[in-house]
Amino acid sequence: MGKLLILGTVAFDAIETPFGKTDKILGGAATFIGLAAAQFKAKTAIVSVVGGDFPQEYLSLLKKKGIDISGIEIKKEGKTFFWSGKYNTDLNSRETLTTELNVLADFEPVIPEHFRDADVLMLGNLHPSVQLKAIEQMKEEPKITVLDTMNFWMNHTMPELKEVIGRTDVITINDSEARQLSNEYSLVRAAQKIHRMGPKYVVIKKGENGALLFHNGEVFFAPALPLEDVFDPTGAGDTFAGGFVGYLAETENVSFNNLRNAVIHGSNLASFCVEKFGTERMQDLTKEEAESRLEQFKQLTQFDIELR
Amino acid sequence: MGKLLILGTVAFDAIETPFGKTDKILGGAATFIGLAAAQFKAKTAIVSVVGGDFPQEYLSLLKKKGIDISGIEIKKEGKTFFWSGKYNTDLNSRETLTTELNVLADFEPVIPEHFRDADVLMLGNLHPSVQLKAIEQMKEEPKITVLDTMNFWMNHTMPELKEVIGRTDVITINDSEARQLSNEYSLVRAAQKIHRMGPKYVVIKKGENGALLFHNGEVFFAPALPLEDVFDPTGAGDTFAGGFVGYLAETENVSFNNLRNAVIHGSNLASFCVEKFGTERMQDLTKEEAESRLEQFKQLTQFDIELR
Repeated sequence: MGKLLILGTVAFDAIETPFGKTDKILGGAATFIGLAAAQFKAKTAIVSVVGGDFPQEYLSLLKKKGIDISGIEIKKEGKTFFWSGKYNTDLNSRETLTTELNVLADFEPVIPEHFRDADVLMLGNLHPSVQLKAIEQMKEEPKITVLDTMNFWMNHTMPELKEVIGRTDVITINDSEARQLSNEYSLVRAAQKIHRMGPKYVVIKKGENGALLFHNGEVFFAPALPLEDVFDPTGAGDTFAGGFVGYLAETENVSFNNLRNAVIHGSNLASFCVEKFGTERMQDLTKEEAESRLEQFKQLTQFDIELR
Repeated sequence: MGKLLILGTVAFDAIETPFGKTDKILGGAATFIGLAAAQFKAKTAIVSVVGGDFPQEYLSLLKKKGIDISGIEIKKEGKTFFWSGKYNTDLNSRETLTTELNVLADFEPVIPEHFRDADVLMLGNLHPSVQLKAIEQMKEEPKITVLDTMNFWMNHTMPELKEVIGRTDVITINDSEARQLSNEYSLVRAAQKIHRMGPKYVVIKKGENGALLFHNGEVFFAPALPLEDVFDPTGAGDTFAGGFVGYLAETENVSFNNLRNAVIHGSNLASFCVEKFGTERMQDLTKEEAESRLEQFKQLTQFDIELR
């Protein structure tokens, strides 16, 4: 059983989809990553910051899932990071309505002493200089460092982002971000260029069209499970990342073969996340449910053509 | 070794992509389907019509591939069907520049006597009433009838199209066509509705995002092979269909498990088709090349999570 350290936001989200609307509910990249990783046998901690307005009930929820929250700083005088967004009818695009950084504006991450030797370091989507501070606090190099980022940081903080990318083993971004970062339309060529920036592994997420894992000229594909209804896509990418790193931390194996399994676990958990608003589905997801849907992933991709 | 009858266009195409431009070259749905099916051990025939302007050389090419062309009518006084189109930069969308129906306008298909007992009937994209005429000429019901169609027929000839759909076992359409036909956004729900129109199997093609095969509440997914370069997508969907029906005709097995293999073969051949203009790559494709890329499809999708 390995140690997993997650850096990222713990936040309030307010979400509007064609199917409904929420008030401020529990959200944030680290929250989704943590809840997904909690499906695996690993020692997991979150490093983040919240304000005095953040309900104790949410912290208790994370704790009850076995997540070490000693690295979540509570700034009594401050307000918690808040994001709100509205999805278009097809759920494939969304509009950000509000982003209030609040306590995130001057976040100085402090990794608890007992997690500075984590096996897996997961850098959730945040300002790259904050991600860099986490990397620098590690006492020894993690077995694997996984970076999630987005187009906003490519547009505004490319030099810092390039430095973080240069120090990570795996980058997870979506297809349009991969194209932006590499200036290549073909995802195969994009991955080749991003490899040269540092990461041995490049994961390109394509939403309902699955995810590609590139390594050394090889490629593995994890489909998204075709679902009757997608209710709310918020957090699906983070849940994917959480399943990915949670499985790696449990198995303590960072071979390409094991990373293939890890992206399947990530896709599997993401398929649950989108079934309800926010973290709702991930809060009550059981190991048995997750396991049984893995069988569907096998059925979805398995074929038996005999090669000569 | 089964018999495969292909109904569809044999035509001239003129194509413009970001990478170049062609004059009138060999094209047409039945041509692409036939060239793909020729990779398999089946007795294959094409039923179509061309004009007096159609080069003997093209007919000889089909014949040399082992395709029975006795059902390709040559109307000496007429001109061959001509389509020209221009692809946008990302190759995912295209604009039709010219459609000259010519001899296709009053095409009366005649299936050669020795193919009226075909095991597999492939109805390439054409006016549904022409497709219906082919169905009605079969002496006995084929083991499997596969229908390809497009949005144009949904817009203009829905009653006739519905009748054809009601008499086929498999329909292949792309994702937006599936949504249009079913009036459902979710592809899972779309497939359920289309099943109720007749077809036991629904294949939804998503271009570079692969293809889904739905049957009886189950679903199988064939990814598209991630390619460094896509040169010309023309005919990829027909090549997919050709690989699908060619494999079914060779194996004479229409079980769901064998249809899974068939969509992989279809995806595999389509990945070659797009590497060059028009039919160029499919003309010289060897069995060894096709076989070796199948191994990549295994590598692309195979994982070994043990389920309890």
